[in-house]
Amino acid sequence: MDKETIKLPGEDYSEHIRARFWFMGKEPSYLGIGRITLLEKIQEFGSISRAAKEMGMSYKKAWKLIEELNSMFDEPLVIKEQGGRAGGGTYLTEKGLLAIKQFRSFEVKLIDFLEVESKLLNF
Amino acid sequence: MDKETIKLPGEDYSEHIRARFWFMGKEPSYLGIGRITLLEKIQEFGSISRAAKEMGMSYKKAWKLIEELNSMFDEPLVIKEQGGRAGGGTYLTEKGLLAIKQFRSFEVKLIDFLEVESKLLNF
Repeated sequence: MDKETIKLPGEDYSEHIRARFWFMGKEPSYLGIGRITLLEKIQEFGSISRAAKEMGMSYKKAWKLIEELNSMFDEPLVIKEQGGRAGGGTYLTEKGLLAIKQFRSFEVKLIDFLEVESKLLNF
Repeated sequence: MDKETIKLPGEDYSEHIRARFWFMGKEPSYLGIGRITLLEKIQEFGSISRAAKEMGMSYKKAWKLIEELNSMFDEPLVIKEQGGRAGGGTYLTEKGLLAIKQFRSFEVKLIDFLEVESKLLNF
């Protein structure tokens, strides 16, 4: 097998342990690293279509994910403004920004935890 | 959508955070919960075909996974004895037993970590 083409599971968080995690809201919605990245790109570009393009994702797929994320908590994470001269913008709510912040903060703590535990493994 | 049919990602390790992890050996091999469960069932039944059946997996698939796991470290995790009157048995090596032990021990620590962190989330 060509090593370059192998897709390993999870994220490369420590030397011997890869991992992935998901924040849960109202089921069946969840927030994983792909959706967080989509939110971050929407925040960066103010545009769903641009964010989707950056991720190699169709607009339809991105919009479907956003609808799912917007039903995850009591408030939406993303607001899409309708029309207007500038064609309407898209931005994250405070809840959306908080979700990103907590996800990335937890990720740092998880990496610290995994780095310690990874060194304790003894095969 | 029917909630019963939804497959959530990862394992239900804490109230608000689901997770999955993989121990890495020589790439591209890795050891995740499915493969650990297969090893546990081989240990339990002493038979790859029985273990595969318990997991709803074909013998071919199980054997492929075992071959991959056996090349993951310097020693194999599973030994399949050839033939003999009893048709040959399959058992885990010390390395295989150690892999299960470390995987499940780490899993317990991860659950503790996630339970604490899950309570700190504030959406």
